[in-house]
Parts: sequence; C-alpha cells; structure tokens
Amino acid sequence: MAKITSVFSMRHFFVLSLALNVSLILRTMYETEQGFLCYRSKTQKGQTTQRMRLSSSSSSSSSAATTRTEAQDGVERVINLDQGDPTMYEHYWQQVGEKTTVVIRGWQHMSYFSDVSNICWFLEPELAEEIARVHRVVGNAVTEGRHIIVGTGSSQLFLAALFALSPRDGPEPVSVVSQAPFYSSYPSMTDCLKSGLYKWAGDAQSYSKEGPYIELVTSPNNPDGNVRRSVVNRSEGTLVHDLAYYWPQYTPISSPADHELMLFTVSKSTGHAGMRIGWALVKDQEVARRMIKFIELNTIGVSKDSQLRAAKVLKAVSDSSEHGGTWEGVESFFKFSYRVMAERWKLLREAVNSSRIFSLPEFPPAHCNFLNRVFEPQPAFAWLKCERDIDDCESFLRGHKILARGGKHFGVSPKYVRVSMLDRDNNFNLFVKRLSTIHL
Amino acid sequence: MAKITSVFSMRHFFVLSLALNVSLILRTMYETEQGFLCYRSKTQKGQTTQRMRLSSSSSSSSSAATTRTEAQDGVERVINLDQGDPTMYEHYWQQVGEKTTVVIRGWQHMSYFSDVSNICWFLEPELAEEIARVHRVVGNAVTEGRHIIVGTGSSQLFLAALFALSPRDGPEPVSVVSQAPFYSSYPSMTDCLKSGLYKWAGDAQSYSKEGPYIELVTSPNNPDGNVRRSVVNRSEGTLVHDLAYYWPQYTPISSPADHELMLFTVSKSTGHAGMRIGWALVKDQEVARRMIKFIELNTIGVSKDSQLRAAKVLKAVSDSSEHGGTWEGVESFFKFSYRVMAERWKLLREAVNSSRIFSLPEFPPAHCNFLNRVFEPQPAFAWLKCERDIDDCESFLRGHKILARGGKHFGVSPKYVRVSMLDRDNNFNLFVKRLSTIHL
Repeated sequence: MAKITSVFSMRHFFVLSLALNVSLILRTMYETEQGFLCYRSKTQKGQTTQRMRLSSSSSSSSSAATTRTEAQDGVERVINLDQGDPTMYEHYWQQVGEKTTVVIRGWQHMSYFSDVSNICWFLEPELAEEIARVHRVVGNAVTEGRHIIVGTGSSQLFLAALFALSPRDGPEPVSVVSQAPFYSSYPSMTDCLKSGLYKWAGDAQSYSKEGPYIELVTSPNNPDGNVRRSVVNRSEGTLVHDLAYYWPQYTPISSPADHELMLFTVSKSTGHAGMRIGWALVKDQEVARRMIKFIELNTIGVSKDSQLRAAKVLKAVSDSSEHGGTWEGVESFFKFSYRVMAERWKLLREAVNSSRIFSLPEFPPAHCNFLNRVFEPQPAFAWLKCERDIDDCESFLRGHKILARGGKHFGVSPKYVRVSMLDRDNNFNLFVKRLSTIHL
Repeated sequence: MAKITSVFSMRHFFVLSLALNVSLILRTMYETEQGFLCYRSKTQKGQTTQRMRLSSSSSSSSSAATTRTEAQDGVERVINLDQGDPTMYEHYWQQVGEKTTVVIRGWQHMSYFSDVSNICWFLEPELAEEIARVHRVVGNAVTEGRHIIVGTGSSQLFLAALFALSPRDGPEPVSVVSQAPFYSSYPSMTDCLKSGLYKWAGDAQSYSKEGPYIELVTSPNNPDGNVRRSVVNRSEGTLVHDLAYYWPQYTPISSPADHELMLFTVSKSTGHAGMRIGWALVKDQEVARRMIKFIELNTIGVSKDSQLRAAKVLKAVSDSSEHGGTWEGVESFFKFSYRVMAERWKLLREAVNSSRIFSLPEFPPAHCNFLNRVFEPQPAFAWLKCERDIDDCESFLRGHKILARGGKHFGVSPKYVRVSMLDRDNNFNLFVKRLSTIHL
C-alpha cells in the first residue's frame, strides 16, 4: 500500500471511489426506471403501483470491486436483495468442477421434437428420468402416476396451469386466489392480458364468492417461508401447489407431496435460474394435455439445451445425495446448501437481535426424513418486519442503501419486507453487517 | 442378403414389416389425438375444428428404418410434412463439425441476469452482437437504432408484440388481422386466453372496422411464400413484420428490411428449432419496454444456454458468409442452403408437372443483393393446390399417406395444402417420388 500511495496519492483514490459511487447511484436510479421485475401490481382498491428493480450485484467482478471500495473509503454501496437471484450456489458448482459440464454440438437437438411417444412431446427423456429420480432420492414428491411437463421456468407452468384449470366457456373469468402474503408476481401474471378465462381475486382468506375458483398454495411460502395448506376448502375449487422451495436446504421434508398439480423449478432447487427450467407433476391427463397445449401456443416447447443441462445438474444432485456426506471429495449438494442456509439464518438472527428494530418469523422445528434430523425452516427469503413506528420498511431500508421488496407487493402491510437469502457471500455478509449497525 | 434369408425366411421379413407398419399407423392415429400442433382454429363462421399433429419422422433412426422397410416390402409408410421441422439443416452442421460446439460448465450463467446495462436485461451480449452482425452481413434488416429483444422462439415475441401494441384501457380488444392465407397458429395464439387487450379479426383484406388495429405482415409469407406488404393501410394501425423466412436460401434479399417491429428466429434461418430462440428488432423504446415486460411476466427471461449456442451458430453463419464460397473446407451456410432449396424446388416442380393433378405458385424472379444473382423464391413451404374436382387436398393426400396442413387452417380453400420443404433428405425424396406417381 505504501508503494502504491507513493505513485497514486490518497486524493487519487478518493476521486476514484467517488466516481465509482456516483456511477453506481446513477445506475440504480436508471434501473429503477426500467428493469426486472418491472411489474404493475394492482391492489384490491384499484391503486396502481409501478415497481421496477434490477440487481446491482449481478456481476461478481463489479461486486468485488465495490466491496473493496467500501472497505477503503467507508462510503456505503447499494445492496440489492430485492430479487431471489440464487447466485449463492455458484460456489458449490465450482467445487463440483467438470462433472456437470454440458457439451452440445451444432447438429444436435435441432428438431422441435424430443419424444413423440410422450404426451409432452417437447420433454427430453433424460430430464424426465432425472426429475423422477431426484424426487425419489429426496422424497419430496410423488411422481408415480403423474405426467411430467417441462416449462420455461415455473412461471410458464403457472400460466399453463391457469389456462388448463379454467372452466371452458364459463359465464365469467374464474377467480384466482392465494393466501396473503402471496408471491408478488401472482397478481400481475394473472391479470397481465386481461384474460376472459381467469382473474386475480386476491387473498384466499377473505374469499367468499360462490362457484369455481383456483387457489394457489405456495409451500414453503414465498415470501414468509411458512408451510401452507389450502384455506378456501370448497368443493368447486382446484389447487395449484407451487413447491419451488420444498427442498431440504430450506425446510424439513416431512413426506412426499402428493397433490393434483405441483410445480418445481431448478432456479431455487439447484440455483440455475438462467436455464429457465421448471416442471409440473400433474395427475389428471386432460389437465396435462391442456397445459402442454398452452406451452405449444406460448413458445412451441422448451429449450432443449437447457433441458439437457438441467438433467446433468439434477443427476449430480441425486448422485451426491446417494453418496451421503461427501461425493468424490465434494460435500453432497444438500449438505452444502443446508449448511450455508443454516449459517446465514444464524447470522441474520444475530444481526436482527442486535439492531432491536427488526423482527423475523419463528418457525417450529420438524423432522426431515431426508436429512434425518430435526431443524427449523431456513427459508430462501427473510420476511423482515420493521418494529416501533417504522411504517414503510422498504423505504426505511432504502435509506440505508438496502433494496428489498415491501409488504404491499405481497398483499400485506408495508411494515414487512422480503429479503433474498440466496445472494453471493460478499453481498449477504455486507447486508447482515449493515443491518446490525442500524439503530434509531 | 442370401445368408440372412438362409436363417430368416422372407415370411419373417414380411411379418416384421407388417408389424412395423401397424405400429406406425397406430402411432399416427394416437398422435392425431394429442400432439403438436394441437390447435383449435375457429373459422369466421364460428365452426370449431380440432387438429392435432405429430411428426412421424422426428427421429432419424426410426425414419431410416422405415425407409428400408418400404423399399423392401413396397408397403407405403406415412410421410409427415405437416410441421416445418427444419431437420434438413442437420447435414450442414455435421459438416461444419466442432466449430459450433458449446461447452457450458455447471457454475456458469446461473443468474437471472445477462446484462443489467441493457433495457433487455436477459439478453446475452454475445447474442446481441451476433444478431447485429448477421443482419449486417446478409443485408436483410436494419439494426441501427433498434432495440434487440430475445424471446423463447418468435412465438413468444409475437405474443409480446400484441401485448405491447394493444392500447391500454381501450373500450374493447384491439383487432388483430393478417391477409389470408395467414400462418395457421395466429388465430389460436391470439385468442387462446380470451384476452381483453386484443382479439383475432381474420383476413386483413376484408377488414373494414374503424379504430385501432394490429396487422401481421409475414414476408415471405407462411404458407404461400409470397412477398407481402400491409394491406389495410390506415393511420390507426400498427404493424408486426414476421420476417422468419427473409433469408437468402428462401427469397432474394432486395434490401434491408426497415420496419418498426420485426421478428426473426433461428428455427428457420439456421434450422435450430430445438433452441427456441427468436429475436425482435424494435424501433420504439416504449414498445420495446412493454415487450420486455411481457417476457418477464411470461417466463422471467430466456434460456441463457440456448442464447449462447445461438450466438455461436450465428457467428458461424456470418463467418462462412464472409469467406464467400467455402469456409475452412465447408460450403458457406447460405451457399449450401440455397443449393438444397433450389434442388428440392426443381424436384418438386417436376413431380407436380408429371402428376397433372397438382399445381404450385409461380414466383417472379428478383435480384438478391447478398447472393448477387437473380432467382425465383424457393420457400420453406410448398403451397400445393389440388386441381380438378378434388375439394379437400389434405384428405386426398392423407389417402396417399402424406400428411400436410389443409388450406382451411390458413383461412382459405381446402383445395390447398401446406407442405414442409425442410425435412430430412430421405423423407423429402420419398415425398416427391410418391407425389409423382399419384394419378386420378
């Protein structure tokens, strides 16, 4: 350092660090106007709020650079934990090395078709096999007697399910409900095209209309991590179970899920969000057929390249799990991911306790059949509440350069925010460090 | 053969071949009930016809096996040219070899994000670069001053365009029109969700309603190969140009297309349908923003793996084109594909002339700036007409075990059928051979 400062004065560093911070702040402002998730969420009362967000930590090199700057000059950088970008998992797959490398040649997988003998003609047989296997190994879902349908992420499968479950030629759109707090994109995804087939009808707990409805059950729940069951419980309802987080790093696996229509995704199970691969397990053949038809009309199938890559990654998850603790010198996937989540939740709870102005949900411990241990859920998102007289937790945190998604987007009070627990180590650690220093 | 027959009698072969044919016929019947493109096309008069199709030639091994059987026992197998599965191109990419192989490691491209500095945050920079380059090399579209938006095939971008161009809060859904014969999936894709934003309104030529509308201009046209312009020409209309086939193997490139919103896809340009990668070139920033929002709500971005593979393939197309006739011992991509299409159209026209019961459209020759030669369009589909008193050409051909898509799905007379010209050599050759032997 002494040598460097003999060439570059401290003033040079100061100017450089200021420039870097100005560019980051400008980027954040620009991003606030255009990026993901650029959703319009209509509240029950018809208010329209436009929220647009982007990750400021999407490149590890820029992230590392800004961390260094912060350490040097003490100026805080923006920490974006608004999305659930699962970059935490990169570290594991780097350790695994070449075993999950895919090689695809120019002439391979060119056809629209994957398997014409399957009702889901665009599903790669290798992926179908590894999906069934990973559920068998983990014990988190029944696949026997189910149709497996692949989708471009579970988002597409959610829309396919709405299409498939809506009554044909009904007098009005079927109501789509979910218990609040619900996944913030459900309302805008449902109402985006003003469909005559289905319509967002808000919180399932206050739903009392007669007639058919679709209830979305997310368990463990996004944003709050709770185990969920349907709450409307009427005979004319159909259920969609979004089980994106029903994996042993997040929650104890108590039994194989056995519902009519279940959704999963690699984004949250293995961390491969960029693949855009999800799958549905569907009991009823006619529902499966209609979901497949939706995907045909929407995107004429699903990327074969990503399906093959997903198959390879899921195979590694199963292989590593069957080897128990370690697998060819590497921790098994769920041992790694359970351990990291446990450490992060411990750090977060310590930070929250030391700040005294936030609180977190408490979860009852339960036995996990897969890990064969009792533990408390350690969700992919923290559902943080601002206590005392802080009414808008999202704005409060933004004042401390922490971006998180406020409660109103999930149909509840703005005293809550959802914070991603799946970002890279440096971002997560900076977050808990900053949180612990916030005092009123 | 003599040695084989000493063990297996001709009777064994006959039984084997019969069994194979029965299984193929059963499969075709089964496929007719469930597969791609399983679309419901509503005609103007409200009739509903359910058509479902699957390729019986989607695996080269089964295809080769059935060709051998047909040659041996003279029993005709089903030739499915209903879809435009571009398997013709496999041969070219095999010749190119490892230059277009992609290698993706387990820890790469895991994030949702590709480029947070781009309005289309899920577009891989490599792909953006190669899209701009291939258009510059071929001279078929202006990319300067355009936003490039990647989609899960051009189907998703078509839906994104409808969403983006529909007036907000209009009194009724905006009319979507296209000149007949139009792409058979446009009506069902548009009306699938009974959107309150837009509604299929049929043939653009008979469209006379006042107010805003969206006109789809497919040029060269699917199914008939004609060069198209908008036909409604009123000030309140917006246009979507579907230019999937505006490449020099299909039609002379007269000038760079320079429209407000243009759609392209690798499926028809390079033959990689299984990747599900398309792109839009969009002039207006607000329209681009809304299309991006649609893709966020629909699939939260587009497979990164396929984007990287598409970039590599498009790079090879540009590299080979810049090398002129040959490129590292291999024909340039467009020289190969132009030559194969020219040969196929010559063979098809000969077969049609010899049968005397079919006819094909004639196209005026034009100068292609890219290939620097004058030629007649040689479309990706043949728009075949049954002459004399054959009123239903699709049924007539099915009687000869040729599956093609009938005119009524494209909004015109059932005397027409659309036949894919992009299948593998053995299937195409068998088709023209069989066609030439059909007599009344």
